[in-house]
Amino acid sequence: MRIVVALGGNALLKRGQPLTAQAQGIAIDEAALLLSAAAASGHQLIVTHGNGPQVGLLALQSAAGPAISALPLDALGAESEGWIGYGIEIALRNALPEDAVVVTLLTQTLVDPKDEAFAHPTKPIGPTYDEATAKRFAETNNWSVAPDGKFWRRIVASPKPIRIIELASIKRLADSGAIVICAGGGGIPVCKGPDQKLSGIEAVIDKDATSGLLAEQIGADMFVMLTDVSGVCIDYGTKRARVISRASPRALADMSASFGTGSMGPKVAAACHFVSTTGRAAIGALGDLNEIIIGTRGTIVCPEGGEISFRDVP
Amino acid sequence: MRIVVALGGNALLKRGQPLTAQAQGIAIDEAALLLSAAAASGHQLIVTHGNGPQVGLLALQSAAGPAISALPLDALGAESEGWIGYGIEIALRNALPEDAVVVTLLTQTLVDPKDEAFAHPTKPIGPTYDEATAKRFAETNNWSVAPDGKFWRRIVASPKPIRIIELASIKRLADSGAIVICAGGGGIPVCKGPDQKLSGIEAVIDKDATSGLLAEQIGADMFVMLTDVSGVCIDYGTKRARVISRASPRALADMSASFGTGSMGPKVAAACHFVSTTGRAAIGALGDLNEIIIGTRGTIVCPEGGEISFRDVP
Repeated sequence: MRIVVALGGNALLKRGQPLTAQAQGIAIDEAALLLSAAAASGHQLIVTHGNGPQVGLLALQSAAGPAISALPLDALGAESEGWIGYGIEIALRNALPEDAVVVTLLTQTLVDPKDEAFAHPTKPIGPTYDEATAKRFAETNNWSVAPDGKFWRRIVASPKPIRIIELASIKRLADSGAIVICAGGGGIPVCKGPDQKLSGIEAVIDKDATSGLLAEQIGADMFVMLTDVSGVCIDYGTKRARVISRASPRALADMSASFGTGSMGPKVAAACHFVSTTGRAAIGALGDLNEIIIGTRGTIVCPEGGEISFRDVP
Repeated sequence: MRIVVALGGNALLKRGQPLTAQAQGIAIDEAALLLSAAAASGHQLIVTHGNGPQVGLLALQSAAGPAISALPLDALGAESEGWIGYGIEIALRNALPEDAVVVTLLTQTLVDPKDEAFAHPTKPIGPTYDEATAKRFAETNNWSVAPDGKFWRRIVASPKPIRIIELASIKRLADSGAIVICAGGGGIPVCKGPDQKLSGIEAVIDKDATSGLLAEQIGADMFVMLTDVSGVCIDYGTKRARVISRASPRALADMSASFGTGSMGPKVAAACHFVSTTGRAAIGALGDLNEIIIGTRGTIVCPEGGEISFRDVP
């Protein structure tokens, strides 16, 4: 099968750990072992990844450096694709046989400059702050900030992905048998001006939305989103909590209010969209990747009727 | 012809300008127009670029950010490939017809961890400082610093490139007709441990040396290094200054003492190495690219005998 695997932020860095090159390297090595097992089973992989914590850190570093040289979010997104892509590529090379071809493509994603997300930023990036620190950064760096649970974070616009600019090259490399790392952080956000020229725009695209678009357009058989929870839960945090083991988009739509806030909503939306146009999607824990592919773990979204099934939270 | 074009730091940013996203964008747009004219003449381009000012800035930003999260030079090199590659790619797309394929590949370059460069750092990166500031940074950030003309700069190890890890994918994309942007900053420096695993190593590889290796291994017909001077000069800065218009590696070797310090020595060495194994090389000004390709500007290095010819400095 051709499978697009999206590594969530929590698959790139253990939850609650500070973001250091070393901590990220350890998490990525673990992911690479699981991905290499999937490749060894004969699956063709296209690997995408988030960049929320990383692009937030780069923004902090950029703002703390020489004042004249602070970089816009599109440039920081490009930097994060370089940094994280390099980390995933080297870990995969070390986990795979010597003759495996692994390549990282810089990826730009077209968005609409009139997308309403630019007026209503929603995507949290970077570390958490107390309210006073967040408001001070908002003032000095011209950021939008908002509460995220107990803490505050910077929030940025997250427009809808329209087109993956490098799609043809990604497809060519995947067709040739390479494991392709691409669309990091949802792709570098670019838009077309009235003169039809491309330019960068300050945003961070949801990586699950872009990964789903990529999976659809590249003809993937399966689209897997990996995080650090075992699947889509209902009644999360209560004694009645259960993992949805299998559901159709229609069944999921009926219970979308139960998934809570945070990143699960966009994941479910991306899964349902892919299933309605193309193949099979799944959401689950990084460590379960190979069971998710054969359908015995995670939440599998399939195109059939309106049925749904559950399992206990592990 | 298949041509590897290496954009020097001074082709990415006007000499003396502070490094900002905007200033870099303007310089890159100019380079893209010249490259697109070469592509329109039917040449197949592989574009590489330096990263000295950029990786130095990223190191400053990284050191100024949250202390725990300062990143090593290999990660910063990967970031710079993302940032600069994105800039070149978007400028080329805007300069080329809509159906042109342009793609940026993250590139790692294998070096020997026992390379003597690690004991003797020589490559200046980042901005210039006065002596006191340079020595303060050396202390606080554990940098090596050295005089560079009137000012001081950070210096890092610049080991010899041995192998370009992603060569097969670069070749595949170039063979398919794509303009490939790669080997930025000489490639992200990696080395093999006793267990044969790859890992990053703190260095910045000379981009002309890596570009020459790439040109050789990818079967380029020509290898062009672009900077902001019109060619290799002798008696530079005097009334007798002349540009070498054409020379063989042997003739250049006889006068290597005349090229002065700085980046011209490595450029001449990379040109001579390429010519001795493969094709034709040239060194010249960005604005002269299309004349350099037909042989009427810049310094052309050809494999014939020991002859040399000159022209006046423009």
